[in-house]
Amino acid sequence: MNQTTDRQVAVFLAEGFETIEALTVADLLTRAGIPHTLVSITDDTRVTSSHGVEVVADGVIKDLDFSQYDMLVLPGGIPGTPNLEACPLLMQQVKAFAAGGKAVAAICAAPSILAHLGLLRGVRAACNPCVEKDLMAGGAVLVHEPAVLCENLITSRGMGTATPFGLAIVRYFLGEETAEKLRRKILYQDINSGDLHR
Amino acid sequence: MNQTTDRQVAVFLAEGFETIEALTVADLLTRAGIPHTLVSITDDTRVTSSHGVEVVADGVIKDLDFSQYDMLVLPGGIPGTPNLEACPLLMQQVKAFAAGGKAVAAICAAPSILAHLGLLRGVRAACNPCVEKDLMAGGAVLVHEPAVLCENLITSRGMGTATPFGLAIVRYFLGEETAEKLRRKILYQDINSGDLHR
Repeated sequence: MNQTTDRQVAVFLAEGFETIEALTVADLLTRAGIPHTLVSITDDTRVTSSHGVEVVADGVIKDLDFSQYDMLVLPGGIPGTPNLEACPLLMQQVKAFAAGGKAVAAICAAPSILAHLGLLRGVRAACNPCVEKDLMAGGAVLVHEPAVLCENLITSRGMGTATPFGLAIVRYFLGEETAEKLRRKILYQDINSGDLHR
Repeated sequence: MNQTTDRQVAVFLAEGFETIEALTVADLLTRAGIPHTLVSITDDTRVTSSHGVEVVADGVIKDLDFSQYDMLVLPGGIPGTPNLEACPLLMQQVKAFAAGGKAVAAICAAPSILAHLGLLRGVRAACNPCVEKDLMAGGAVLVHEPAVLCENLITSRGMGTATPFGLAIVRYFLGEETAEKLRRKILYQDINSGDLHR
């Protein structure tokens, strides 16, 4: 990886995480040269996704020095999302990151966690249709964009928006031009882009 | 998984495979209820992707009964693609599948393998720009679509077209309506779909 920034991202893996939502972020961060760590929320680095794919994380949460990180990423998936929410250390850090102006990103069902923590009041946010009621109950301004950044919170809708979600994270750290260059490099056709007019 | 067909797919993992290209296929096949196996091409089920993600395969190639399978999937990635091509048993089976009217699917750099085996003569095919010269030398009719089916061969362009690639495989087994329903379910916006007109 050709590192492009000193800022670091932690992507959390719980049993039942959505494979593509978690690993697309890691993939795009690697391509963009942004340091990142796949973190198991248990003491075991082996984690099985909601679709039965076993992945080996880079480390476990109890060993993580959160002060070295600039963004926490919460993938969706069932039961991955409730498993993340049932991790007290992670929930404490998500609140601390949001309160301290650091970034938190969540996709699919995981934005419901941010809503439950009271972090989405008045915040423009996207999520999977299955948790829209949670976001509305939490006072979010619901949007149906593939990915949205508002007040250091990046949210997205589901497995099929994992690439826009990852690109939004790249854009957060490295800017629009770099994210757009990466989008073209991986041959991702963005419905809102100039690709439409080819 | 709610199984929808008896037909089976083998997705091959070589050291240096592209994480998202391989696992998006597995993810969409699981969602569609199509039985599939992640197969390591070595004797070790642990395989590390081109971006350093370690995945545990369901089995290894020497134990695979190819007669039980209806499609072989070749993900891209470097050195994943040359590693696939350096596996004699896999190359023999790719040729046998193509000759026997069974399906082979390849994405990113991996369609170059099909070209080198002489399987793309007169075939409409897509690939990563980095191997377009290989496809042209192999007599393919190069197209720039995200995914294309021609003569039981499905080909696609890269990490950013992994979802259209996976959906093309679902369409091959279960038809257009099921694939389109799945596309909407995962919230994937297709540049060629009615999503444009919302």
